[in-house]
Amino acid sequence: MTTPGTVTANAGDIIALVARIFSSLGVNEAGARTVAEALVEADREGLASHGVMLTDMYVDRIRSGSVSPTATGTIVSDQGVAMVMDAENGLGQITGDKAIAHAIDRARTLGAGIVAVRNGFHFGAARRFALKAADAGCVGIVMCNTRPLMPAPGGAEPVVGNNPLAIAFPTASDAPIVLDMATSEAAMGKIRMAAKSGKQIPESWAVDAEGRETNDPEAAIAGMLLPSGGPKGFGLAFVMDLMAGLLSGGGYGATVSPLYGDPAKPYNCAHLFMAIDATHFGDAGAMQQAAAAAGDKLRAGRKAPGVDRLYAPGEREWQRARDNADIVTITDTVAAMLAGIARTLDIEPALIAPLEQSKN
Amino acid sequence: MTTPGTVTANAGDIIALVARIFSSLGVNEAGARTVAEALVEADREGLASHGVMLTDMYVDRIRSGSVSPTATGTIVSDQGVAMVMDAENGLGQITGDKAIAHAIDRARTLGAGIVAVRNGFHFGAARRFALKAADAGCVGIVMCNTRPLMPAPGGAEPVVGNNPLAIAFPTASDAPIVLDMATSEAAMGKIRMAAKSGKQIPESWAVDAEGRETNDPEAAIAGMLLPSGGPKGFGLAFVMDLMAGLLSGGGYGATVSPLYGDPAKPYNCAHLFMAIDATHFGDAGAMQQAAAAAGDKLRAGRKAPGVDRLYAPGEREWQRARDNADIVTITDTVAAMLAGIARTLDIEPALIAPLEQSKN
Repeated sequence: MTTPGTVTANAGDIIALVARIFSSLGVNEAGARTVAEALVEADREGLASHGVMLTDMYVDRIRSGSVSPTATGTIVSDQGVAMVMDAENGLGQITGDKAIAHAIDRARTLGAGIVAVRNGFHFGAARRFALKAADAGCVGIVMCNTRPLMPAPGGAEPVVGNNPLAIAFPTASDAPIVLDMATSEAAMGKIRMAAKSGKQIPESWAVDAEGRETNDPEAAIAGMLLPSGGPKGFGLAFVMDLMAGLLSGGGYGATVSPLYGDPAKPYNCAHLFMAIDATHFGDAGAMQQAAAAAGDKLRAGRKAPGVDRLYAPGEREWQRARDNADIVTITDTVAAMLAGIARTLDIEPALIAPLEQSKN
Repeated sequence: MTTPGTVTANAGDIIALVARIFSSLGVNEAGARTVAEALVEADREGLASHGVMLTDMYVDRIRSGSVSPTATGTIVSDQGVAMVMDAENGLGQITGDKAIAHAIDRARTLGAGIVAVRNGFHFGAARRFALKAADAGCVGIVMCNTRPLMPAPGGAEPVVGNNPLAIAFPTASDAPIVLDMATSEAAMGKIRMAAKSGKQIPESWAVDAEGRETNDPEAAIAGMLLPSGGPKGFGLAFVMDLMAGLLSGGGYGATVSPLYGDPAKPYNCAHLFMAIDATHFGDAGAMQQAAAAAGDKLRAGRKAPGVDRLYAPGEREWQRARDNADIVTITDTVAAMLAGIARTLDIEPALIAPLEQSKN
């Protein structure tokens, strides 16, 4: 069952290809595999915007020098609980894995570990790092900033990014409990889809370039995303911008570059990784059982008419990844992009073949 | 300039009266003053729902035994960064002040301090505690849970409270930078106001008792609040319920009681207070200057048509409190409630007089 316009391939094959692309560009084998696995995982979770579609932008930035293929992140300040990492423009999945590992390590011994990261690059889906902390028995809290995309309430110019926040709680269940949210009401991708299909958008999604309410997706594209819940999402994005950017001594506000801007100019975002070890508060096993029971209770709850199934936060993506344990589905366009990059790198045709063989 | 139906009095007079009410009920002088000042501060900030209108509910619960007038909170587990407090059903402003002071103290020495509080009672506005951390040069993060009020996405029964979150960042500016949000899209008070004035409500605010979308405020009142941003606010509320409730070994989900339910039954909510000391990450003075500059930049930004002024997160409430430095305006109903309670406690008429003299 392949949807027209898509390519379905073995997940391992796509991971091997994407890893080979990054290793060809100077990323070490382990790091290349980390990035490839993280991107494919997002596709399997149904988060295509954080999946292998990012590969060409990452590659373009490595080739243009704004992303380092060899940097893995250096701890430049270590005060025990509080650490600062210089990511040196390394791939965010690699520097992020190191940062959350440090945070977990300190949480184990001290109760909490906090790593603020400067000179950061895109790190993919924030949930991935928060879940690593939860798997280690810790509450994981992960945030980062982006360039300004949203106005202040009543404003007519972008002030803050739609900065994401992920929080995972350790649980005894197979299904995770993890929040992963951007602070905008809607993603720009949804607005572009409305524009393509000639539909109006709710006025909570965006404002026009003058800061006025709009239902017109074209005016929204020329305008600005609105924060989720108005002042709530704005306030959350604003304080996270300062937490990641200022605690790390890194970028914040307009000093973060456009992700799809000049590929020679470092992205300069900042990340914050926090782990809190439940065992320092009490019976961590009992807490994990209670968290699992809270998820079960939610799933067993009464449903609104027409609803088949209820999900705990983050469970739907996990379920999708289970349903797609060995396969990954990407668009023709993304498949062609990957194949094209692979050819420019003289990657073995055998590694490229799975993309083409599986084409409809 | 007094609005009809309201009473405007000297803030100090109202603080003295409310403090006298609580001290008459067995709260020590300092604690009674803390509660009174915190409630009046919320009224001055324009947050009447967290102001002196709460006095009768607090009093009713003290008289019925579910709130202890003497408990100030006891640290029952101390692992350095991680602490657990048993609030012993004490007034939340008093136990919360102690908890955030412990968190700040540990942040100073260790980088971070986290106090999870069980057997908690209502603590007023969360921003107040987060701001205490920021005033001490720390990032302050404060959350608590309430009984279930909001369904899971697609659900038809309440699963989680509209749990509030406050985050303050230290700043060199007079105006604070503080997020303080409930995780519901709208407050029940706004829905009741729509019902009273016969207006429809946006469908993002609430669902009916079957979990169906509704624009009818009466159906919403019989139904459930919706989370801010749908799955975003729900996920945030759900993980905060577990963080406060499970790390403290306290109440979460349906084990938290209705605030306005049986006054003899403990409320049993949980709080979480976190302080992160900026000095453990870098040049805290420079960070505070940068935060102040970020606020200034926001305020100086371009405005949408018809907008006079832009505010940083939490600034509007701070400005209102400055504008009302010495006065507090409450409704006639709240004034009569306070006077009535004062008379039952044989409080000196001189303390009650300001309420009555200022009446229209």
